[in-house]
Amino acid sequence: MLKRYILTPGPTPISEEVLLEHARPLLHHRSPEFSKIFVEVTEKLKKLLKTKNDVFILTASGTGAMEAAVTNSFSTGDKVLVANAGNFGERFKKISKKFNLNVISLDYEWGEIVNPDDIKKSLDENPDIKGVMLQFSETSTGALNDIKTIGSIVKKYPAIFIVDAISGIGASDLRTDEWSLDIVIGGSQKALSAPTGVAFMSISAKAWKLIEKSNMPRFYFDILSAREALLRTPPQTPWTPGISIIVAMNKALDMLFEESLKKAFERHRVLAKATQKAVEALGLELLVKDESKRGYSVTSVKVPENIDGKKLTDIMRIKYGVTIAGGQGKLKGKIFRIGHLGYFGMFDTITAISALEMALNELGFKFEAGSGITEAEKVFIENNYLN
Amino acid sequence: MLKRYILTPGPTPISEEVLLEHARPLLHHRSPEFSKIFVEVTEKLKKLLKTKNDVFILTASGTGAMEAAVTNSFSTGDKVLVANAGNFGERFKKISKKFNLNVISLDYEWGEIVNPDDIKKSLDENPDIKGVMLQFSETSTGALNDIKTIGSIVKKYPAIFIVDAISGIGASDLRTDEWSLDIVIGGSQKALSAPTGVAFMSISAKAWKLIEKSNMPRFYFDILSAREALLRTPPQTPWTPGISIIVAMNKALDMLFEESLKKAFERHRVLAKATQKAVEALGLELLVKDESKRGYSVTSVKVPENIDGKKLTDIMRIKYGVTIAGGQGKLKGKIFRIGHLGYFGMFDTITAISALEMALNELGFKFEAGSGITEAEKVFIENNYLN
Repeated sequence: MLKRYILTPGPTPISEEVLLEHARPLLHHRSPEFSKIFVEVTEKLKKLLKTKNDVFILTASGTGAMEAAVTNSFSTGDKVLVANAGNFGERFKKISKKFNLNVISLDYEWGEIVNPDDIKKSLDENPDIKGVMLQFSETSTGALNDIKTIGSIVKKYPAIFIVDAISGIGASDLRTDEWSLDIVIGGSQKALSAPTGVAFMSISAKAWKLIEKSNMPRFYFDILSAREALLRTPPQTPWTPGISIIVAMNKALDMLFEESLKKAFERHRVLAKATQKAVEALGLELLVKDESKRGYSVTSVKVPENIDGKKLTDIMRIKYGVTIAGGQGKLKGKIFRIGHLGYFGMFDTITAISALEMALNELGFKFEAGSGITEAEKVFIENNYLN
Repeated sequence: MLKRYILTPGPTPISEEVLLEHARPLLHHRSPEFSKIFVEVTEKLKKLLKTKNDVFILTASGTGAMEAAVTNSFSTGDKVLVANAGNFGERFKKISKKFNLNVISLDYEWGEIVNPDDIKKSLDENPDIKGVMLQFSETSTGALNDIKTIGSIVKKYPAIFIVDAISGIGASDLRTDEWSLDIVIGGSQKALSAPTGVAFMSISAKAWKLIEKSNMPRFYFDILSAREALLRTPPQTPWTPGISIIVAMNKALDMLFEESLKKAFERHRVLAKATQKAVEALGLELLVKDESKRGYSVTSVKVPENIDGKKLTDIMRIKYGVTIAGGQGKLKGKIFRIGHLGYFGMFDTITAISALEMALNELGFKFEAGSGITEAEKVFIENNYLN
């Protein structure tokens, strides 16, 4: 028997309660019974995003929603600003270029965060920028951008602010309306801990004005079609949605609100801290050096010299059943990433660190046995996590 | 207690076995364990489509795959031929126009099928047509196009042949390679009887040549990215896929092959015939008059005069728990549609007809009580269906 643990930043562990909802016989997507759930999930997503803006559910991965944000908001040739400090920042650049936008990019070291002053400077120098795009939590590094400050800057310009909050929302506090965020993107498979395959996005009044003028060709991801379908009786999606995923999200959102968002953010903060203190105790180096720049969703750790990163994660997965993530893009082989996101408790972190210790030991890395676990436990105790 | 039955042409009833697979804890989409299943499903889909062509799995509804076929195959301004005899034919037209193609359309009465001679004539008159698009089973009417004959025509021209087989594949025989079909599109939620949210498409060598030249902007549905991701170790999708749906499809495909495609087609043929004979015995009129033009997936029935179609389907759903489908587009309110597709047996058809009889009775429609059921049973007995 090899008991398996998914300790990655998406998909995340899913509760038995949510899996059982996911396995219910499907309702028809045009029936009032499904429509009721669909409307409920939409309202709950507004609560999660802290917004009164419209929210739309798309049957696609988060990348589909990133494309939807771009193709609905802009017109061919529009100037946009992409601030990029990782693999998903790169993705916004790639999507924008594919759809023939005029892309200005602010490129940072991976592991760094975006400097709000740079955003202000770019907007001052380019008053014709139509949109600013960046990540809340950059999943490829674990860094968390200061969306609040950047929001307070962008709102003074004609540009809209598009935030990919896929791996951050639900783990760290994000306030769509209070921070003036025009489009916020999330996914089913991260802090929500529902199955993969559904994404969602909120749209502000400022964004609607651009959307109504956009000339970009689009069909499946057309938000105007989605808005029209929401006005039907009963409210629905324009195309067949991922019914069983939306039903699972409904349960997952209930569980999150039962815990309360405030407690969920605190849980993620402590899990992140425990993970980070533990790997440092093992003598490993974190990718995001400055603690204030680290998010609560995932911790990126540099692969130590003389250790083969792929071998490390392979041993953990094949021998111990513990799946963590490797590096993406140019960090491939150079870091590994431990999730602490979603339906995730203290002992999931203990499991991750324990498997890491055993694999490091097998690869001949020198460290004090048990020191990671000991440090993690200390963080949990100090934070009254056991109460 | 109100026991519920989904007897629509998608989503279709899902077996307990498939629902339980669907509810398994998620594998990580970059793990060799998921990759193995993903490759298996891809191979099984080739068997279903009767093709040696490449097959790709997309996380989206069938409409997403229809868009993918268009945006990957063509370049802006290309001339395409859409043969349209229903709501989904209209959809191919809308998508093609959205993406600025030069659309020639052959429009038929809804309930009719496409005349292969018209296709030949259009291709002769327009030798610059790059692609021909139409449905196998037109879900909005239940008519089944003669894809074999049209395939034998299109293959002699430079145009590629794109077939939306979403509601037909698995219910009626379709032979991708033997019939020279360049792109064939299917979905998870029809005859496969897996949950909604995943689509798939096969691509021939002739189609690849167009795809490699296409200048259409696309990202999420880019098949070249999907092809590249398949070549990685282990093979994977470019973006996070609908993991639990693909795992469910794996089981659903096993069940279909265990029955054998041949027997599944025969089962669908008999279910369709029983449904059609039953509604005719009740004095109702079928939308597709000519039996040879009817597919095996869904039966469209005209709403009788003086009966409110919405009231009829509402009574069936609310009072009896039996969900059938109404008309779409311009047939809304004029027809209702009874599915006989997927994980569907004799007694599902008996249930549909029985609920229909009781609802018609309630609405004061005159017919001989029990005559529909009696006729359906006769068809099952005549076809040795009970053996």
